Order: sequence, then structure tokens, then C-alpha cells
Amino acid sequence: MSADTKNAKGSGREAPLVRRATPDFRWESVAHMPYKEEGSAPFKAISRQILHSDPDLAGELRYFEMDAGGYSTLERHEHVHGVMIFRGHGHCLVGDTVYEVGPHDLVTIPPMTWHQFRATRGEPLGFLCLVNVRRDKPQLPTEDELNALKADPAIAAFLSR
Amino acid sequence: MSADTKNAKGSGREAPLVRRATPDFRWESVAHMPYKEEGSAPFKAISRQILHSDPDLAGELRYFEMDAGGYSTLERHEHVHGVMIFRGHGHCLVGDTVYEVGPHDLVTIPPMTWHQFRATRGEPLGFLCLVNVRRDKPQLPTEDELNALKADPAIAAFLSR
Repeated sequence: MSADTKNAKGSGREAPLVRRATPDFRWESVAHMPYKEEGSAPFKAISRQILHSDPDLAGELRYFEMDAGGYSTLERHEHVHGVMIFRGHGHCLVGDTVYEVGPHDLVTIPPMTWHQFRATRGEPLGFLCLVNVRRDKPQLPTEDELNALKADPAIAAFLSR
Repeated sequence: MSADTKNAKGSGREAPLVRRATPDFRWESVAHMPYKEEGSAPFKAISRQILHSDPDLAGELRYFEMDAGGYSTLERHEHVHGVMIFRGHGHCLVGDTVYEVGPHDLVTIPPMTWHQFRATRGEPLGFLCLVNVRRDKPQLPTEDELNALKADPAIAAFLSR
């Protein structure tokens, strides 16, 4: 059969049905999207790869990776994240608790819960993240909300790592 | 704060927000569900763990694992599978093509496409599988459909491994 058929063209599926993992946590036919750090970008040294996004799937599976010292955006939103740590060790904030995390740990981010991941251990930290395709936009903390979070010494220490 | 609060009780979330990976590809607070092999069970030596299932997620993330020599059910359905091989090497059938697969390879199972995973390499084969919460029931092949598949020597060899 032809490669075209295997791509299931005409179905909205442009990618091959099997996409190989390549070295260093990348994949064939998956765009590697580093986030641009401009001015006051509230994240650092993080990239995104969308692993599964399909017209017939209500969820998407993404892979985020931070370089050592990098971090995701501190944010909250109505939609839920279903996370699995995929490589490396680091810390995450979920609500008012800071957790140490390592490979294959599962993290649930409930609605409207402040959260951030940080590659605090001198190595890259990568995680899979399941979300709904239909979702609201993230909210960033106001200065007052950020100060309220920092009133907790553990959170203040986490945010300054 | 109390563990109860961290569980986000009352939200439909009973599990802790962070569930640790434990040795041998299992997780805290995640039920390990071996499939019962009874009579003509069309699968062998496979288990399921539901990693992310949340009242606010339209998708579910499951982990399936076969022992060496095990296989998943040969089936098709309208709903799509978004798969990532998680451990081990083996083979899978998608439609009319047999693929060798290994760690982190991505596999998309389009609607109404015959598919099966087989742990053909003398080691366990584990994969993550993203599906919609709302989905149709799998269909098994009729004897005629199975014979049509087996008319392809590569598929016949795959099915007898």
C-alpha cells in the first residue's frame, strides 16, 4: 500500500499512523515548538510538542520539556491537566503545595488551581499533559495574587529556585 | 493543609493530586486490572491501569501492559486511539500493516481500523492509550473478516506470533 493510504488522508489525519521516537525526546512528524522568551515572559527554557491531536479525539496529549533551570508559566484555568512526568526530576506547585516529582509520577491540576513546573535538579524536566481540546485560556496571577502565594515560605522558595 | 483538601474532595476527584510511580510500571492509588482469560478470550496476559480519568476531562489516559508473548484484543471501533509505546518492543497491526514498535513511538488508530498489539520480543510491551470518555464498544472480527486479514501473509504471521 502507499504511504498516502497509511496517512489516512482525507480523514483530517495528515501525519503517518506510526511516528517514531527520535533521540532526545523528539518525534518524527511532530513539530518542536520552543516558547519565545520576550520581555517579561513568565516562563523559561520550555518547549512543546503535540503528540496526539486528532479530529476525532476530545483530548490532546502534549509533551512539554524544560531545560535545567527552566520553568513553565505560573497560571490557572478552568480546564484540568492530567500530567505524567516523563523525564527528569524537579518540583511542581499545585494549589498551595510544592511537590518533588520524578519519572512517571502522575499530577492532576484541578480547575482554577495555580500551578507551575520547575526543572530544579540540574537536568531537563519533561512531562506529558492531557487536556481537553476545548478549553479556556490560562490566567496569570495579579501582583496581589502572586504576593498571597509568596506569603507561604515554601512557595516563595519554590518560585525563586 | 490536610490530605483531604489535597484530594480536592467533593469535586469528584477521589485520588490524591500527586500519585507516585512505583517500581515495575505501577502507580500509587491506581488500580491494576489484569484481564481475566476465560474460554476463548481474544487477548492474552494483558493488564490495564487508568492513569487519568477526571470528571472534567473528555479524554482518558490508560496504561496497558502485556507480558512477553501477550497480546491485546484484535478489534475495531469508531473511536480513535492515541497510543505511545511506553516500555519494551513488539509489533502492532494497524489496518493492513504490521509495524515494529519500540519505546516512545506514537501510533494512531483511526476509526474502524483493525488493530492489535503483540509483545513479540520476549519482554513486556507497555503502551499509553488516549481515548475519549464517550466511546463506542469494540467490535471483534467475524470468521470471514479474520480470514480476509489472514489472506495477507504478513498479517497471518503477525497473528500467529
